[in-house]
Amino acid sequence: MLNWKNLDTLASYEELKKVEPVNVAEVMSGENGAERVKNYSIPMMDGLTYNYAAKAVDEKVLAALAKLAEEAQLIEKYESLYNGAVINTGEKRLVLHQLTRGQLGNDVVADGVNKRDFYVSQQERIADFANKVHAGEITNAAGEKFTTVVQIGIGGSDLGPRAMYLALENWAKVNNKFKMEAKFISNVDPDDAAAVLNSIDVAHSIFILVSKSGTTLETLTNESFVKDALAKAGLDASKHMIAVTSETSPLAKSDDYLAAFFMDDYIGGRYSSSSAVGGAVLSLAFGPDVFAEFLAGAAEVDKTATNKDLLKNPEMLDALIGVYERNVLGYPSTAVLPYSQALSRFPAHLQQLDMESNGKSVNRFGEPVDYVTGPVIFGEPGTNGQHSFYQLLHQGTDIVPLQFIGFKNNQIGTDVVIQDSTSQQKLCANVAAQIVAFACGKADENRNKNFEGGRPSSIIIGEQLTPKTLGALLAHFENKVMFQGFVWNVNSFDQEGVQLGKVLAKRVLAHETDGALKVYSDLLNI
Amino acid sequence: MLNWKNLDTLASYEELKKVEPVNVAEVMSGENGAERVKNYSIPMMDGLTYNYAAKAVDEKVLAALAKLAEEAQLIEKYESLYNGAVINTGEKRLVLHQLTRGQLGNDVVADGVNKRDFYVSQQERIADFANKVHAGEITNAAGEKFTTVVQIGIGGSDLGPRAMYLALENWAKVNNKFKMEAKFISNVDPDDAAAVLNSIDVAHSIFILVSKSGTTLETLTNESFVKDALAKAGLDASKHMIAVTSETSPLAKSDDYLAAFFMDDYIGGRYSSSSAVGGAVLSLAFGPDVFAEFLAGAAEVDKTATNKDLLKNPEMLDALIGVYERNVLGYPSTAVLPYSQALSRFPAHLQQLDMESNGKSVNRFGEPVDYVTGPVIFGEPGTNGQHSFYQLLHQGTDIVPLQFIGFKNNQIGTDVVIQDSTSQQKLCANVAAQIVAFACGKADENRNKNFEGGRPSSIIIGEQLTPKTLGALLAHFENKVMFQGFVWNVNSFDQEGVQLGKVLAKRVLAHETDGALKVYSDLLNI
Repeated sequence: MLNWKNLDTLASYEELKKVEPVNVAEVMSGENGAERVKNYSIPMMDGLTYNYAAKAVDEKVLAALAKLAEEAQLIEKYESLYNGAVINTGEKRLVLHQLTRGQLGNDVVADGVNKRDFYVSQQERIADFANKVHAGEITNAAGEKFTTVVQIGIGGSDLGPRAMYLALENWAKVNNKFKMEAKFISNVDPDDAAAVLNSIDVAHSIFILVSKSGTTLETLTNESFVKDALAKAGLDASKHMIAVTSETSPLAKSDDYLAAFFMDDYIGGRYSSSSAVGGAVLSLAFGPDVFAEFLAGAAEVDKTATNKDLLKNPEMLDALIGVYERNVLGYPSTAVLPYSQALSRFPAHLQQLDMESNGKSVNRFGEPVDYVTGPVIFGEPGTNGQHSFYQLLHQGTDIVPLQFIGFKNNQIGTDVVIQDSTSQQKLCANVAAQIVAFACGKADENRNKNFEGGRPSSIIIGEQLTPKTLGALLAHFENKVMFQGFVWNVNSFDQEGVQLGKVLAKRVLAHETDGALKVYSDLLNI
Repeated sequence: MLNWKNLDTLASYEELKKVEPVNVAEVMSGENGAERVKNYSIPMMDGLTYNYAAKAVDEKVLAALAKLAEEAQLIEKYESLYNGAVINTGEKRLVLHQLTRGQLGNDVVADGVNKRDFYVSQQERIADFANKVHAGEITNAAGEKFTTVVQIGIGGSDLGPRAMYLALENWAKVNNKFKMEAKFISNVDPDDAAAVLNSIDVAHSIFILVSKSGTTLETLTNESFVKDALAKAGLDASKHMIAVTSETSPLAKSDDYLAAFFMDDYIGGRYSSSSAVGGAVLSLAFGPDVFAEFLAGAAEVDKTATNKDLLKNPEMLDALIGVYERNVLGYPSTAVLPYSQALSRFPAHLQQLDMESNGKSVNRFGEPVDYVTGPVIFGEPGTNGQHSFYQLLHQGTDIVPLQFIGFKNNQIGTDVVIQDSTSQQKLCANVAAQIVAFACGKADENRNKNFEGGRPSSIIIGEQLTPKTLGALLAHFENKVMFQGFVWNVNSFDQEGVQLGKVLAKRVLAHETDGALKVYSDLLNI
C-alpha cells in the first residue's frame, strides 16, 4: 500500500535537515577531492555516467537521502506508475510515457487495449509511413519526393521534438542518416508561420499537425496558415499533411490528412518526445532506426531508475539532491549547462519538463503544501554561457545549483588544433575547469577577484551525443522530475495553471471584458 | 559630489521597507484596476509605452522609490557616466556605450580623442564598407557579390547582435531592406563552426571576426576553423574577413583582414550592440540606414532616462521596481516574456546584460555587500512560454516578477482569420489575458484549479517591432541595468567572475592539474 504523504510529514526529512551541511570547497580540495570525483560516480548506461562529486553531499547526507527515498516510497511509486496505476490523480489518468520505449512491469491494459502493443503499433505505422516517404512511394501530387518535414505544434509538441531534432541533425548528416530537413511552427504570432513558410519549398514539404485534443488554438491557427500557403501554391493540402493526435480527436478520422498517428491521454505533452509526437518527425527526419535507437537509450535509463539502491540510481539520486538543495539549502533555481552546441534547445525542453511538472503549490490531493516545490530552470550551452550569465553563477549573491553535461567526442568530426589542443579538448577543458572553479573558488585579497566557491554542480559525461545517449539523457530528466514530484507529493502530470490564461484570452477575443482586462485589450488594439 | 553608498546605508531604503505592501490582486480588480492600467503608464518614445499597472506599487511605494532614486543620486550618476567619469572603477574605464548613439552631455575626450567623433567615424567607415559590398564594389576574388555575412564572436559579440539580427530579419525582408543573410559562430564546440560552414556558400561569404582584445580563445579558434574552410575551398581568407576590434589589438593592423573597424575599452561586450560590434553585421545585413534608425531609437530612450521625475522615466522606474521586488519583496528571479517570435533570442541577450552586470557580491569599492543583488533572468517568447513554464509562474511556490513585451502589429503582414480573429489579435489577447490572470488570479474551491494571483508584471507595448523600437527596447534595458547597479552600488561594467574558469581551463590544456581537476580532465579524455 502506497503512502502519499507530504514531504514535511516525513521523519526522514526532519533527520535530513539536521545533518551537518557539507562544505563543497573543502571536500573538493586536494587528494580528498580527487577521490570524491572517482567515487561519486554512477553509470547510467554504456557510455554515460552521472558524477555528483561537486554536490553538497557526503556519506551522512547520502544516508539521509536514502532514508528519505525509502520513506517516500519512491521506487514503489515508480513501480506503481509503470504498472498502470492512476498516478495523474487530478485528471484521473495513467502515466505511461515509459511504455513507449519498453515494458518495465506488468502488461498495462486500458480502454480495452494493451498499451505497450498500442504504442508499438503506432511506431510501426510511423516507420512504415516514413520508409515509404523516403523511398518515394508516398510523394506529392506531382509524384516528387518530399524533402522537408514541418512540425506544427506548441509546448510539448514543439520543445522536446525540436530539441531532439537539433541534437541529432549533425550526427545524422555525418552518419548518413539524414533523410529530410525538419522545421517547426509553434507560436500563434503570425510571423512564426510566415517566416517558416517563406524559408521552405512547400511543394516538397510534408506537415505534421500535432495536437492531442485536436483543439489547441495555436496549432489549429497555424494549420490554417499552412493550408492557405498550400492553396496559394495550387496544392492539395490533404496530400501534404499528417496528424498526430488522440484517436478520439476530431483530427483522427479526417480526410484532411494523408495519415493520422495516435498518442493518448496517458502521455503528457512534455513527456511525449518518445511517443508519436516525437516519433513522426524524428522518423521522417532521420529514419525509423534512429528513432528506435533513441527509444532504446531511454529504455535503458528507465530500467536503471528502478534500482532501489540510491547509489546505483542516478535519476533518483539527482532528484533527491535537487530536493535537498531546494528545501534544505534553500536554492531557488537550477541551471542546465550542456557543453554541446547540439543541445542548444535541450535546456528549453527541460524548462518545460521540470517547471510545468513540479511548479505546483498543492499536493496530489489538492491541499496546499507548506514547502517550496519545483525550482526555476534555465540554461544555455557552454562555452557560450561562460561569456554570458556565469558571472552571476560565480560571484552573485544567490547560489544556483548547476547541471553540466559533456561529451568526450564531438559529432561532426571536423576539428582544428590551435595552441596544441583541439576545439573539442578546449570545450572539455572548460567544463572541467568550471566545475572546480565553482566548487573550490579561489581566495584573492582583492575581493572583486575573490571566488568563494561552494557552488555545487553535477555532470553527466558521455562518449558522444548519439540517438541512444540522447534518449538516455531525456529519460534521466523525465525520471528525475517524476521522483521529485513523488517527494514533494505533487501531481507532476497535470497543468491546471495554464487554464486561466486561456479562459481570459477567449474572453478578450469575444470582447467580453471589463476592468483592467478591457483597458489592456484597448491598449493592444484588440 | 557623488555619494557612492551601499543600499542598506540609505535612509530611504529603510523607509521603503516600512511601506505597506500592495495587494496586486486587490488593486487590479474592478474599476480601480481599469484606472490603474490607464494611469500607470509612461511613454518611452513615439510608439512605445511602459505600463506598470500590474506591479506591486501604489502612490506610497512610488513616493518611497522616488526618494530612493534621489538619495542614491541615480540621475546624477547617469550624468556623470555620460559626461565621461571613470564609472567602471575596477578596470578604471569610462562607460560610453550611450555615446555610440548620441551626445547627452559634454564632449568626452579620452586618449586624446573626442569619443563621440570616434564612434561616428567608425559608423561612417562601416557604412561606406557595407554600401560598397552591397553595390558590388567590394567582392570576392572572382568579382562576385557577397551574399552572406558570418559573425564570429562570443558573449557580447554574439548574443546582442544575434538577437538584434533575428529581431529585424523579417521586418527587413518585408520592407525591402534585406541585403545579406547573417549567420553566427560562437561556441568553441567544433560542431558549431562546422555546422554553420556546412550551411553556407563560403565563396560568397564575408566573415566578421569580433574580439575587443583580439585574444578571445573561442573566437580565435573559430577564426582558424573558418580559415581552414576557406583554404580548402581554394580561397584567400584575407579577401573574406574583416575584424571588429580595439585599435591596440593584434588584429587592428593585420593584413589578414580586408578591413578593421574599431571599438574601445569604454564599451563593455554586453553593451556593444550599438557599437561596431553590432554595427558591422547589422549594416551588412540590412544596410547602414537601418542601423542608423536602430541607434536613433536607442538615443531617444537614453534621453528619456535622463528625466529626474521618476514617473516620467520608465528606465529608472523599471529599475527601482526591480530592486523593490528583489530586496524588499524577496523575489529571486525575473522572467522576460516578449510576445513576438522575432524577439526569440532577446531574453538570452538580457540574461547576459543583466546577470553579468549585476551578479556581484561586492560593491564598487570591492567590499562585500549584505543584501542580494542581480536576479536570475530567463525567458522565452509568448505564446510558446504559456505552454511551457507558465505553470510554475501561475501556481508555483515562488513568485517570479514578469516583464512582458507586446506589439499591436506583426512584422510580416501575412495573417489569417480563424474564429473571427487574426493570429496577431490572438497573440495580443493572450498577453492581455496573462497579465490579468497573474495579477488577479481566480478563486476556485478545487485548490488545484485555484489561482491566488498577486503575481506582478509590467508590459512594454509598441506599435510594431522596427529598427527604431528595437533600439529603444535595447536602451531601456541597458539603462535599467545601469540604474540598478547604481542602487546596489556595484560596478555593472566589469566581470571578474569569468576569470577563474579561464585560468583553470588553460591549466587543464597544459596538463598542469592535480586533485579533482586532474580526475575530471581524465574523465573527459583531455
